[in-house]
Amino acid sequence: MENIQLTPVEGGICAPQGFSAAGVHCGIRHNHSKPDLAVIKADVRCTGAACYTTNKVYGAPITVDREHLADGYAQAIVVNSGNANTCAPNGIQLAKDVCALTAQALGVAEADVLPASTGVIGQAMSIEPFEAGVPDAVSKLDSSPAGSLAAATAIMTTDTHPKQAAVEFTLGGKVCRLGAIAKGSGMIHPNMATMLLFMTTDAALSHEVLQKALSEVVPATFNQISVDGDTSTNDTVLLLASGLAGNASVAADSEDYTVFVAALTKVAEQLCRELAGDGEGATKLLECTVTHAPTLEVARAVSKSVIHSSLLKAAMFGADANWGRVLCAIGYTPGDFSIDRTAVRLRSKAGEVFVCENAAYHPYSEEEAAKVLKEDEIDILVDLGCGDAEAKAWGCDLTYDYVKINGDYRT
Amino acid sequence: MENIQLTPVEGGICAPQGFSAAGVHCGIRHNHSKPDLAVIKADVRCTGAACYTTNKVYGAPITVDREHLADGYAQAIVVNSGNANTCAPNGIQLAKDVCALTAQALGVAEADVLPASTGVIGQAMSIEPFEAGVPDAVSKLDSSPAGSLAAATAIMTTDTHPKQAAVEFTLGGKVCRLGAIAKGSGMIHPNMATMLLFMTTDAALSHEVLQKALSEVVPATFNQISVDGDTSTNDTVLLLASGLAGNASVAADSEDYTVFVAALTKVAEQLCRELAGDGEGATKLLECTVTHAPTLEVARAVSKSVIHSSLLKAAMFGADANWGRVLCAIGYTPGDFSIDRTAVRLRSKAGEVFVCENAAYHPYSEEEAAKVLKEDEIDILVDLGCGDAEAKAWGCDLTYDYVKINGDYRT
Repeated sequence: MENIQLTPVEGGICAPQGFSAAGVHCGIRHNHSKPDLAVIKADVRCTGAACYTTNKVYGAPITVDREHLADGYAQAIVVNSGNANTCAPNGIQLAKDVCALTAQALGVAEADVLPASTGVIGQAMSIEPFEAGVPDAVSKLDSSPAGSLAAATAIMTTDTHPKQAAVEFTLGGKVCRLGAIAKGSGMIHPNMATMLLFMTTDAALSHEVLQKALSEVVPATFNQISVDGDTSTNDTVLLLASGLAGNASVAADSEDYTVFVAALTKVAEQLCRELAGDGEGATKLLECTVTHAPTLEVARAVSKSVIHSSLLKAAMFGADANWGRVLCAIGYTPGDFSIDRTAVRLRSKAGEVFVCENAAYHPYSEEEAAKVLKEDEIDILVDLGCGDAEAKAWGCDLTYDYVKINGDYRT
Repeated sequence: MENIQLTPVEGGICAPQGFSAAGVHCGIRHNHSKPDLAVIKADVRCTGAACYTTNKVYGAPITVDREHLADGYAQAIVVNSGNANTCAPNGIQLAKDVCALTAQALGVAEADVLPASTGVIGQAMSIEPFEAGVPDAVSKLDSSPAGSLAAATAIMTTDTHPKQAAVEFTLGGKVCRLGAIAKGSGMIHPNMATMLLFMTTDAALSHEVLQKALSEVVPATFNQISVDGDTSTNDTVLLLASGLAGNASVAADSEDYTVFVAALTKVAEQLCRELAGDGEGATKLLECTVTHAPTLEVARAVSKSVIHSSLLKAAMFGADANWGRVLCAIGYTPGDFSIDRTAVRLRSKAGEVFVCENAAYHPYSEEEAAKVLKEDEIDILVDLGCGDAEAKAWGCDLTYDYVKINGDYRT
């Protein structure tokens, strides 16, 4: 991927050609200052791809997404925060009614609208707020960066800031863009992807190739985030490709495919860092990079195990270089691999300390380590010394505020 | 098990005939008021059984235990707190040296001494404190309940109180006893058993039958505890049987075997509740009982998943009946089972609320639920409605103090 040109650009989901977005307050939430409804519209019918939670309990919108994406096409996304529409009475019909309202307001087919919801599980959701809210959002659709920002803001729950990313790249001589918005914060341990993530591109790809690319990138990126080990019921990634960039449709395993996957990975990794760093109560982003693992599966599992350890997360909050907890978390990772040659380094912009060599103590200065760990982005570098595979995972520290936020979420 | 007579008795590991114990401060810890060394002695050579952590990183004492228990016999246990002797230089030789000191002071064979350690990982441990400490502990060996209490106190780390249990039962007309001491608190998510747990019995059982019984009880009890999802490197259960009760050696699959397993289960469950309820920072004990599961594996996995959910643990701290988090944790449990008929009830001594039926909201009073959840022991009752298997798991709430304790454990 080193020689693939990927240029960050502004505008999130509105960066690619042919997409507009809006976010409004429609009354699902009681707090009038918090937007709770977003609409994303494509000017043309798009190929679509999706990944969903693997939780056996899943939101009603996911059932409808599967149905509406069965033909591989979609043209709009409608999302609410404040209620997950999961284990709620009449949820599937309600999600379909929301799609119908959106389709009517946009003048598109109902089966081309994809719904998504995030918020409390198990509470009945009412159609009323959507009846005025959807037309209001549609009237405010905006293809400038402001549209993406408004949508990114409306899908937030306990997130402290909206999350967006976009890159520019070239396919077959045509300039293409890929953009995304995301929300995360709690119940983040995706087994698929993070909470809600919506991506757009103006590149042309068939539904099959788009899904292949998404399915390839998700396990390496969003599935490698953990805030609290809880896999949500509503995790959803939706990706729409408008084809308006004018490139020839990307063939699987072509050079263009490699470029597109690189672009998708870059946007995904940026949002992984944002999602993990803004985990509920977090004060620090943790990134664990595992190198020289015997297999990709081991590399992914070890890195995720490390950033998922409550003990390590609490130690990072306390800027305590308790490397034994890193080793412990490596050790309880399932799978057959040797830990004898494991080396661990802790790094931040304040420096790097080498704390463990051959699975045992490596002399370091506690003072130096504390300085490194006081920063707000910490890299945990694990070298297993027994292969060529590598992977990253992203998490955050465990803080008083996580307990506070979740001890009283519903009130 | 209903018609098996099991009578709780005092005295912990000293309740059975032929065992004495002691706990002293020898200087591994800087705090002189905290005992850090325990010795447990049997008057006769015992059959022994053990279970250890499945963590790929494991303490040096576990290597020595495996070697010393290879013949199925042991006569003493020596345990220190304050240093886990794990990933520490020269750890195995040091554990053997501690056994040699203990063997000499007790007049038993070195290969009949089983070592155990708990505390910080990765720090060198010195033999010096043991040189005076072991003879000191041996001089204080006491077969009264005070001896068990002293040993239970010496093995504590962040535990807030010593943990003991003992029961009396009858095998072939002979009165037998089984006793135990345990320590837990943090890094508690045993995949084997809880941290350190030492059990004694005066019943006669061969090494093979004793190990069979222990291996049967551990998955249903200690492996079903979770404080923080971190499987320690030093988890160890050791069980010694002196045979001094005079019963005929228990045959596998006999009636006596059933009685012994019932006794072992009773002591184990009592300590599970104590270990979980005294988890680091805990204010509440959580017990999740899963009934009508399709298989035992699903029952165990679901109950453990529920009490392991950080979100649920934080909700319980806040006395918030957020049953969606229970359902979410059931839903991400691995395995193939249906959740459609799931019912959830929350119970404490203040009452019971029925919060979820057929995987959806069941009307209840939030006021009543808050009253139930303000108690310090909460039962979470999950009925999967699709089989006959059942299991329990034990955990605790997630609190500010967990973060505080682990943000700065080493200082």
